Amino acid sequence: MQPAAHTREWPAALAARVATFESAWNDYFQRVESSETRDSRLPEALRYAAVGGGKRLRPLIVIECCIASGGSADVALAPAMAVECVHTFSLVHDDLPAMDDDDLRRGRATTHRAFDEATAILAGDWLLTRAFAMLAAAEVDAGRRSAMVALLASATCDVISGQAADIAGETLAPDRERTIAIHRRKTAALFEAAAGLGGLAAATSEDAVERLRGFGRTIGLLFQIADDLLDVAADVEILGKPAGKDAARGKQTYPRAFGLAESRREADTFHAAAIRELEPLGPAAAGLRAIADRIADRAR
Amino acid sequence: MQPAAHTREWPAALAARVATFESAWNDYFQRVESSETRDSRLPEALRYAAVGGGKRLRPLIVIECCIASGGSADVALAPAMAVECVHTFSLVHDDLPAMDDDDLRRGRATTHRAFDEATAILAGDWLLTRAFAMLAAAEVDAGRRSAMVALLASATCDVISGQAADIAGETLAPDRERTIAIHRRKTAALFEAAAGLGGLAAATSEDAVERLRGFGRTIGLLFQIADDLLDVAADVEILGKPAGKDAARGKQTYPRAFGLAESRREADTFHAAAIRELEPLGPAAAGLRAIADRIADRAR
Repeated sequence: MQPAAHTREWPAALAARVATFESAWNDYFQRVESSETRDSRLPEALRYAAVGGGKRLRPLIVIECCIASGGSADVALAPAMAVECVHTFSLVHDDLPAMDDDDLRRGRATTHRAFDEATAILAGDWLLTRAFAMLAAAEVDAGRRSAMVALLASATCDVISGQAADIAGETLAPDRERTIAIHRRKTAALFEAAAGLGGLAAATSEDAVERLRGFGRTIGLLFQIADDLLDVAADVEILGKPAGKDAARGKQTYPRAFGLAESRREADTFHAAAIRELEPLGPAAAGLRAIADRIADRAR
Repeated sequence: MQPAAHTREWPAALAARVATFESAWNDYFQRVESSETRDSRLPEALRYAAVGGGKRLRPLIVIECCIASGGSADVALAPAMAVECVHTFSLVHDDLPAMDDDDLRRGRATTHRAFDEATAILAGDWLLTRAFAMLAAAEVDAGRRSAMVALLASATCDVISGQAADIAGETLAPDRERTIAIHRRKTAALFEAAAGLGGLAAATSEDAVERLRGFGRTIGLLFQIADDLLDVAADVEILGKPAGKDAARGKQTYPRAFGLAESRREADTFHAAAIRELEPLGPAAAGLRAIADRIADRAR
């Protein structure tokens, strides 16, 4: 169900890492479905929400930032899964009728459509909570586990307040500052946390974690501009969800606040900044460069 | 807005601790409201949901378990606030139209009624997330911070799956096993975690933490039986919410599954068990005994 156009393929090394993550993720939710008490449809809904497409971009960023910092892919798995749990939670809740009211996600029924609203709300709650259980079980020293929890919790509060502002912004005229403030929290905060978690998993220095977070923030902003542009340009086949919905709902988007041409220029600027931010990491950051390039491609 | 009947007053020492907690809690959410970006009604809703009544029973259990284990009230504050965040999240989401559809809570409009559904969903999400940020900042060593996160996350997943089962059970005939399985997760899990967090905050032994968790589980089950009995017997003035709703919705409750007389006997049994479980702690557990007594009083 991945968008086929507007994306280049991953280099083989990254594709292999995504496949490894996907396999661990699928196994995890298979175990969840079969081990949780079956006196509701929640266990089934958890697996439905988690498994079924998704680019796995955020976990890939965790893993690549860990590797670029001298860590192993293994030690990055727990925080990678935690970030994807938070991302999945945010999709399930954002799609609810009271929020963005979407029937389609990744080319199939949203969780509240496939099940019901109560189950979708609870599935989101569960996924959000489980993210922190995963971090608490990460195979790093307790100090870094604790730092990971603090970083992901802080970013998730930002994601939530960004979504609140996103909905509140629907009734307002397009505004540049407001749009940027929403993008920073709704989207960039989780990319930033993903990059920082990768650094923490690798036990790199505080300064290096800060630099990685800066890179994550930049590609997060790039990602959201690209997403806004795609909503204007693409159709349902490319997106796996209806296009043109942002404008229809009056959302605060880059194209609405800045215009198409300036949005594309901003995307190029963020792309160049992201590549620059990787320079200190040298060849180890090849994977991260490929990620930045692929996100930039979506904006074209 | 506290229920005036069916409860004895707290002994002075406990009343003072509740007051201290309440003051720290209120200050915290005042700071949240004034420091969060004001581009949505979320900051206001967070404070509304958090501050405005509530018995603060779970944070009191954290604090008293910490003190009974030789710790200070100060070190218990972060986990006490975290537990109350999770409890508040669960109330806000359980009250939603898609779930229990309640208009009234603690004698005033539920959060989705005072604001709107999207804001209430996001306020619950934020409170749930912030609980883990609070634990990550607790003034204990990193190993115990991590153990606290694991314990609270596990309990919260139980609370969520218990709520899913509670809703799913509405369409089914009253069933004893099902009722107990729901109570264990929906209610007792968080009491158990509260007690265990208190022990962890005090840095007591693993065995002692286990014993405290057993006590927490017992008074959690007692609490839910009492709550079920109150819903049958009480009126809106006592509860701060409409009574008789459980039966009207066909919920799996103790009185429906076991009958009134047996429910009262079960409550007495759990009460006696809780008091017995405190024996090894001696006089240090006076506060915990008072808590068990007060919960038992609600069942009468």
